[in-house]
Amino acid sequence: MSRAFDDESSSMENCKRRIDAMFEMLVKLDVPYYTFHDRDVSPEGETLEESNKMLDEIVDYLEMKQKETGKKLLWATQNLFTHARYMNGGATNPDAKVFAFACAQAKKVLEINHRLGGQNVVFWGGREGYQSVLNTDVKREMDHMAAFFHMVVEYKAKIGSNAQLLIEPKPREPTKHQYDYDAQTVIGFLYTYGLQDHFKLNIEPNHTTLAGHDYEHDILVSSKFGMLGSVDCNSGDPLLGWDTDMFCTDIKKTTLVMKIIIEQGGFATGGLNFDCKVRRESTEDRDLFIGHIGGIDNFARGLRNAAKIISDGLMDGMVKQRYSTFDDGFGKTVEDGKATLESAAEYAASVGEPEQTSGRQEEYEMILNRYV
Amino acid sequence: MSRAFDDESSSMENCKRRIDAMFEMLVKLDVPYYTFHDRDVSPEGETLEESNKMLDEIVDYLEMKQKETGKKLLWATQNLFTHARYMNGGATNPDAKVFAFACAQAKKVLEINHRLGGQNVVFWGGREGYQSVLNTDVKREMDHMAAFFHMVVEYKAKIGSNAQLLIEPKPREPTKHQYDYDAQTVIGFLYTYGLQDHFKLNIEPNHTTLAGHDYEHDILVSSKFGMLGSVDCNSGDPLLGWDTDMFCTDIKKTTLVMKIIIEQGGFATGGLNFDCKVRRESTEDRDLFIGHIGGIDNFARGLRNAAKIISDGLMDGMVKQRYSTFDDGFGKTVEDGKATLESAAEYAASVGEPEQTSGRQEEYEMILNRYV
Amino acid sequence: MSRAFDDESSSMENCKRRIDAMFEMLVKLDVPYYTFHDRDVSPEGETLEESNKMLDEIVDYLEMKQKETGKKLLWATQNLFTHARYMNGGATNPDAKVFAFACAQAKKVLEINHRLGGQNVVFWGGREGYQSVLNTDVKREMDHMAAFFHMVVEYKAKIGSNAQLLIEPKPREPTKHQYDYDAQTVIGFLYTYGLQDHFKLNIEPNHTTLAGHDYEHDILVSSKFGMLGSVDCNSGDPLLGWDTDMFCTDIKKTTLVMKIIIEQGGFATGGLNFDCKVRRESTEDRDLFIGHIGGIDNFARGLRNAAKIISDGLMDGMVKQRYSTFDDGFGKTVEDGKATLESAAEYAASVGEPEQTSGRQEEYEMILNRYV
Amino acid sequence: MSRAFDDESSSMENCKRRIDAMFEMLVKLDVPYYTFHDRDVSPEGETLEESNKMLDEIVDYLEMKQKETGKKLLWATQNLFTHARYMNGGATNPDAKVFAFACAQAKKVLEINHRLGGQNVVFWGGREGYQSVLNTDVKREMDHMAAFFHMVVEYKAKIGSNAQLLIEPKPREPTKHQYDYDAQTVIGFLYTYGLQDHFKLNIEPNHTTLAGHDYEHDILVSSKFGMLGSVDCNSGDPLLGWDTDMFCTDIKKTTLVMKIIIEQGGFATGGLNFDCKVRRESTEDRDLFIGHIGGIDNFARGLRNAAKIISDGLMDGMVKQRYSTFDDGFGKTVEDGKATLESAAEYAASVGEPEQTSGRQEEYEMILNRYV
Repeated sequence: MSRAFDDESSSMENCKRRIDAMFEMLVKLDVPYYTFHDRDVSPEGETLEESNKMLDEIVDYLEMKQKETGKKLLWATQNLFTHARYMNGGATNPDAKVFAFACAQAKKVLEINHRLGGQNVVFWGGREGYQSVLNTDVKREMDHMAAFFHMVVEYKAKIGSNAQLLIEPKPREPTKHQYDYDAQTVIGFLYTYGLQDHFKLNIEPNHTTLAGHDYEHDILVSSKFGMLGSVDCNSGDPLLGWDTDMFCTDIKKTTLVMKIIIEQGGFATGGLNFDCKVRRESTEDRDLFIGHIGGIDNFARGLRNAAKIISDGLMDGMVKQRYSTFDDGFGKTVEDGKATLESAAEYAASVGEPEQTSGRQEEYEMILNRYV
Repeated sequence: MSRAFDDESSSMENCKRRIDAMFEMLVKLDVPYYTFHDRDVSPEGETLEESNKMLDEIVDYLEMKQKETGKKLLWATQNLFTHARYMNGGATNPDAKVFAFACAQAKKVLEINHRLGGQNVVFWGGREGYQSVLNTDVKREMDHMAAFFHMVVEYKAKIGSNAQLLIEPKPREPTKHQYDYDAQTVIGFLYTYGLQDHFKLNIEPNHTTLAGHDYEHDILVSSKFGMLGSVDCNSGDPLLGWDTDMFCTDIKKTTLVMKIIIEQGGFATGGLNFDCKVRRESTEDRDLFIGHIGGIDNFARGLRNAAKIISDGLMDGMVKQRYSTFDDGFGKTVEDGKATLESAAEYAASVGEPEQTSGRQEEYEMILNRYV
Repeated sequence: MSRAFDDESSSMENCKRRIDAMFEMLVKLDVPYYTFHDRDVSPEGETLEESNKMLDEIVDYLEMKQKETGKKLLWATQNLFTHARYMNGGATNPDAKVFAFACAQAKKVLEINHRLGGQNVVFWGGREGYQSVLNTDVKREMDHMAAFFHMVVEYKAKIGSNAQLLIEPKPREPTKHQYDYDAQTVIGFLYTYGLQDHFKLNIEPNHTTLAGHDYEHDILVSSKFGMLGSVDCNSGDPLLGWDTDMFCTDIKKTTLVMKIIIEQGGFATGGLNFDCKVRRESTEDRDLFIGHIGGIDNFARGLRNAAKIISDGLMDGMVKQRYSTFDDGFGKTVEDGKATLESAAEYAASVGEPEQTSGRQEEYEMILNRYV
Repeated sequence: MSRAFDDESSSMENCKRRIDAMFEMLVKLDVPYYTFHDRDVSPEGETLEESNKMLDEIVDYLEMKQKETGKKLLWATQNLFTHARYMNGGATNPDAKVFAFACAQAKKVLEINHRLGGQNVVFWGGREGYQSVLNTDVKREMDHMAAFFHMVVEYKAKIGSNAQLLIEPKPREPTKHQYDYDAQTVIGFLYTYGLQDHFKLNIEPNHTTLAGHDYEHDILVSSKFGMLGSVDCNSGDPLLGWDTDMFCTDIKKTTLVMKIIIEQGGFATGGLNFDCKVRRESTEDRDLFIGHIGGIDNFARGLRNAAKIISDGLMDGMVKQRYSTFDDGFGKTVEDGKATLESAAEYAASVGEPEQTSGRQEEYEMILNRYV
């Protein structure tokens, strides 16, 4: 891929040129927010101190660009997976020294994100998992991961940041198994370790499908549990077993996603981050623009469709009706926590065999198809 | 498949003939425990009352057979997925009347299991999930499922049963998505709804691999979280996307499973249940015996291998060593909950770049291969 | 599922009632063609002779219904997978007696299809494959399958039928591995055994995706090799590992399929067969109609989109341009079979490093999205 | 990964150091053969001429090392997938100029392989497929691929080489779809284009499992069709959707593979090539040796097991018996091509319903387990 603005070196000059290019794109595409990984915007130094110093210089530069353009930071995150030191994990590394390095990077990201007014801090644990159970103590690793998150919560409070902390699930790749497998797993993990009040989720649908769920599943589940913080709105190929990070071209999917987001009242601190790449064979600069424009347009079409579905109320009314036996009578005692197996068995005996009710899936699908 | 003892009718006579055949097998194979689904041992009647009456007669018969043979009940469970009424779910059915029927069946199973001295009661929610998100209120359904489990906990206490309650995860089939997707999901669900002290897990490795994890993964995870109750020790085909319920023929896998079970001190109330079927083309009675004998032998070989691995201590020593930096110093402060991002950053700065340590996966695999 | 017209018995009366219901649907939906499996329209008798006799009576009935309604037979096929005798295969059964039964059924279907004016005869080898390589002689089985097809070709000629023979690929289910894995495999098989002039393919996209290919892949490949005979236009769920036979609701997919069919000049003898089922939970008769109407409409929308894409010519022009270096010069010598490695190496040396050309995938996708 | 012998530069010195290291390993491990890709042993120059010149120097060096050590070349191959020019394919590139470059590289490899006494030349078409059907003319691309292979056949004859030409199937990665999907596809392709007498297959089981088949499937199929030339004996992870190139640690699989190879009378020109990588986290030099030793030992164990299975004759006898009805009578007329649908139908009517025969899969599996 030839990109005039990128000589593929890790010099500070190249880093700044790439930042310039990004802001140029944001301005040209009229996109209000950006996001970054610490080691993608700024090089790794010989020592932590040197890395941090270079990062500070880059943060100055980003701050200047923010002021210049009015663009804002949606989230920052620490890259704990590219450097060879994180080969066996960051917060779940068997070596406490590497764990400490992961902490140091997270500390710095909390600080710079705070300084740049970043609305969220994302934690994607690409190497927080295992390659082989033979050499891994999975419980100890998960305990360390929880300890790391508690340390993050504490330090965030200490520096007075009110950025929303977000965990991004993924089932595997580069690891064979990642602990943050999917939305339900992460939500459960947060409850298990008492972290549920401090984190929300950043959902990337390409990760969701890799975990064996539908595109919209993790977005739906985390939203319904009050845990949807932000969305990395890309798409995978259901037949490929790896992360392709494509722009989403399926209007039906963007419609379902936007419907969920509208229904939860929009994002509080998050947004749609286009964590997408043009294909490797799309070598021209114009492909970059076409890809992003297409991605944005497809979610805009989804937003319009979703708004229409909601204002028409037909589908939601059908769903509401479907569960209406829980709105009063015995059903309500279940929802109120007052039913018992005995009261249920009596009720069952009294009503006799329930009438069969069609799920009408084909009808729901046809109605949806009218909108897309 | 021709089975002389089974005329495929749902008459009480046929039910008893099938029970006779099962106990004959248990005796011939010298297997101490059995398990059953309510509607597999006894027919569905016209009404709940009639179903329960027939079930009582069958339970009398089972009790008699238990006394006669000395065999014991490992667990009983309610079938909430075969009857058309459960088409859209049992505890997650949109119709409160069906929910009540599910409760009534669960109530009866708690009672008969208690009467027969069953050590566990299993909950496999084969239809507790969705076929389409379009017609489903996933949050309301999960809330209902949790309500159902709380009602079960309460009634178990009321009748004085001390059977262990077990949830069996499965990702899908017959539904497109089942809420009890895998071990981590179920454990998280239990914590989310405050049920973690009342349930353990019954792991079926064929379900684990369908969820995208290694054969031993869910057994390992639930064991390490103190949640492994019992194992349905079958096997799937990694290239087939459905539950094949085959006898496990992979000695490496039986070795890893038995190692986990030994390490947790054996089962408290559970066991290895051979939830396996011979292939549809294995039509002779002898195939039934060959299949079960093979399955049992393969776990026996696994048990011996595991005992040898543990007594040799080589692999476990290597793993322990791998995490030894967390046994004292900074690492220990992490495990003790005393570390902060600041103390970690200071430690990282002071130790400098960590030395690279090989994960030695090939060596672990070669060592394991020596034992199998 | 409650269907008033079907008492689920295998009586001749029930068979005729089901045929009546089918023709009633065809008339109501204004669909010109129907298809059938021999043992689905007519019961299995005690002997071949009896089965054939009952089938003759049903064929009389079908003939009468055809005349009455003007509906025509798209294809008939023999069911060589449901009866227990075909458990280990039909044409690939290890037992020559079962092979003979498969032949007898195929012979009868060729005859009745000829009598009813059926335009094609389909061969779906659901059990022509293996469950385990341990007990299987795969070469001998494939040779037998080819022998079977040669016998079919010969008998078709003998009775003067000009129906098109069609093979329907599927990778697995109910077998672990089916020899007719996908379109490329079947086409290659036909060439390997000298059958390529006598068979075309009947493609079912749900089978295509189970084989790891995109929805339209097998339709495309067989069409380009002049081998696309007919389409069973259903759809699967990319995340489920089994045949769901759903109505296709993805307009982008129906557009791509119809584009291929238009480009090959339409079907010669085939058509779009809605080999789809409503979901098991769609229990009302109206669901049957909604499902079929939705399926037909979605392909109608696809047809219109495809016609527009082709008449606009934009996408096809871009593709043609992309390969234009093969239209003359060195490229043309390759297509004409006149190039050699030497002439190629000389040409490469003379032209120097080729200019990089973008694949422009995102642009193609955006253009396609304009049409759907 | 730190490898003292490799500074990761593309200098001639580094290339030679890496070759030295390889031959040192061959000698230390007592392995008689090696293999190489042209651009892995030698750098890409500014021009074809320069690349070829450097390659000639490397070939001199390899020739010297061969003499020095007595090691032999199993196969050489052209890398038509790493350089950006092959982004959209080599022999299937839409640009005739790139096609010419692919030819030039193949020509050179035929020559140097001949000079070094290489026993085979391998063609792995990693980029011979498509990323999107929207921008691809699949038929034209496959025709070009066939043209390329015909040119190779012709040039091989011209230079008097008698190396065996081998195609290595893979379903996808880096492309979304590769035309050489699996063994049956490639065999069929060769027959379709009249190339079946000139090519055999090089099977890599990691590719086989990615294509949805069992580890041994492609080896079995190509062997039975007389097409198995060589084996790249690595292994994948059935739950990961990408090529992991691990050393095979499953003795059951190595047993089945060696059984097939013994049964075809061993390799004619091929061998077991350890196309395996240690895990990225296995960073020490000793891991390299442990990995290779383990891989070799596991196939040696497989060889011994296979020899024992064959000499015992139990399993093969069971399989032979299973198909014995085709050894004479009606079954033999089928194999001799003399049966007709009519003779078959008569035979079926005369013998009546075939007796049910068990497939005995569990018994086969238990017998196999005795040997591993």
